[in-house]
Amino acid sequence: MIILGIDPGTLKAGYGVIRLEDSRPRFIDCGTIVLKKSQPISDRLISLYDQIESLIRLHDPAAVAVETQYILENPKSALQLSMARGVVLVVARKFGLSIFEYSPSKIKQALTGSGSATKALVQKTVQTIAKMDSLPQPDAADALGIAICHSAHLKLQGQRELWPNQI
Amino acid sequence: MIILGIDPGTLKAGYGVIRLEDSRPRFIDCGTIVLKKSQPISDRLISLYDQIESLIRLHDPAAVAVETQYILENPKSALQLSMARGVVLVVARKFGLSIFEYSPSKIKQALTGSGSATKALVQKTVQTIAKMDSLPQPDAADALGIAICHSAHLKLQGQRELWPNQI
Repeated sequence: MIILGIDPGTLKAGYGVIRLEDSRPRFIDCGTIVLKKSQPISDRLISLYDQIESLIRLHDPAAVAVETQYILENPKSALQLSMARGVVLVVARKFGLSIFEYSPSKIKQALTGSGSATKALVQKTVQTIAKMDSLPQPDAADALGIAICHSAHLKLQGQRELWPNQI
Repeated sequence: MIILGIDPGTLKAGYGVIRLEDSRPRFIDCGTIVLKKSQPISDRLISLYDQIESLIRLHDPAAVAVETQYILENPKSALQLSMARGVVLVVARKFGLSIFEYSPSKIKQALTGSGSATKALVQKTVQTIAKMDSLPQPDAADALGIAICHSAHLKLQGQRELWPNQI
């Protein structure tokens, strides 16, 4: 089973792809979708849409996992991030994929055992779990972390359970 | 030239279609896309996407106009609205349409001459300008109002001007 984790954004969006083999997450792919700040937001959103569509066609995931969003200190950024999240949800549903969301603290907890782990520890832990040769970039590490968190929940609860996190 | 005005939402989304004839807005279509509260947000967004896509295929507009969004009193609602806006932008750009946004006060100003007009006055004015037999529903009236506002700006500034409102 392949899981695509997405860390959405309107300037940078991380993605991470893992495969569950014998209930263990195996690294497949990760990276950062870079969007042009000089472009109108609508062009950036369509670029995000197209690039996530390509990732889904390439890796054929069964599910997409994203982080829960809260209003941050900057309302304008929060609204833009939310637009990017809307795009992610739509492209995933276009392919009939299930979508799950986890809070930042749940993701950190699943990865490191602590809901308040630092970004650096998350990166390092993702590298270790996914057995990657080099440290993943921050956005890609976040996205892989979300995918790994979802795989941990699958393992814990069994795939036939009702998913409270499904959105 | 046909203009599609959209008043996005994750429960109800208004739409209004007008045609500019001799620089005057003529009513073509309006209505409300009703989304099921019982459905997950991802399903509602895809339904919104599909229904706006159908409207674009049906009416073949040259431009889409939406209202500028601000953080309202309820942050959760603001984030959901923003997701719906992201979906509107993406589906419009999929068809290569130009997208314009106007602040609520600009829309009211263009329609009634006052930036602080009541909802009821907006409805009534939209009915008069679009020469509709009956009063449009609130969401549909808002969407028609946005389309009419864009047509007024086209008339004022000429289509070849740079558009500060293009997003």
